[in-house]
Amino acid sequence: MERWFSLIKSLFEKINLVKIKAKKRKNMRINRNSEVKEVEVTLKGTTGMRKRVLIGPDNGSKNIVMRYFTLSPGGYSERHSHSHEHLVNIEGGKGIVVDKDGNEIEVSEGYSIFVEPDELHQFQNPFEDNFEFICVIPNIDKR
Amino acid sequence: MERWFSLIKSLFEKINLVKIKAKKRKNMRINRNSEVKEVEVTLKGTTGMRKRVLIGPDNGSKNIVMRYFTLSPGGYSERHSHSHEHLVNIEGGKGIVVDKDGNEIEVSEGYSIFVEPDELHQFQNPFEDNFEFICVIPNIDKR
Repeated sequence: MERWFSLIKSLFEKINLVKIKAKKRKNMRINRNSEVKEVEVTLKGTTGMRKRVLIGPDNGSKNIVMRYFTLSPGGYSERHSHSHEHLVNIEGGKGIVVDKDGNEIEVSEGYSIFVEPDELHQFQNPFEDNFEFICVIPNIDKR
Repeated sequence: MERWFSLIKSLFEKINLVKIKAKKRKNMRINRNSEVKEVEVTLKGTTGMRKRVLIGPDNGSKNIVMRYFTLSPGGYSERHSHSHEHLVNIEGGKGIVVDKDGNEIEVSEGYSIFVEPDELHQFQNPFEDNFEFICVIPNIDKR
């Protein structure tokens, strides 16, 4: 009887160990971007802008967030500034980025942009096709 | 005489003020990616891999670095792990990402990948075209 008890106990310990290991196990997350949930950006002063959070806290990234934005023809983001920086890579189409002095610079696929913390900026799409870009930021909630 | 001295003094102060303002001014950096310096990655265990630092400390980004990698046909990165995470977006072609268990997963344009800190990983290109991806990391030197 005692032998059975000891056997069952060790079995439970083994199962538990496997569970603990499974929890600690790190596994890369692979997204098909088009399948990541897309939401309309509803910020004041923003129109025609959709966002996908490709990589962020929800899938384990604690420090950095990678978002994918689509600006429809005629769309624009709010002209604003904030304490976090933007690392942008243009993924498709073309658009206008407005700097703090109001200069309008045309950018298209194959361009990248660094927007400093606290720098005024805006993205606009006055063209006929979607303007798509990745925008990377630090995890703001962690600051 | 005293009037002239006061005038010159105020002029110098104005010039100085302009200089201080110019120094504090933040201005976005816009890159044409193809014009950013490209270097061969010479890490042990890596072959056929080229890197462009699109955005990093050299152009003012203190916390996050955005790199653009090109893996030639037959190329691969070292199978390794490190304490920083990877936020990857595939920009062109297709390739294989190997996870910690040795699983080989095919990825192509329109996929994104999150590699956890300390997770074993490798990128391979067994195909006929270049495999291109953005890989974002925290600024390691700041850790």
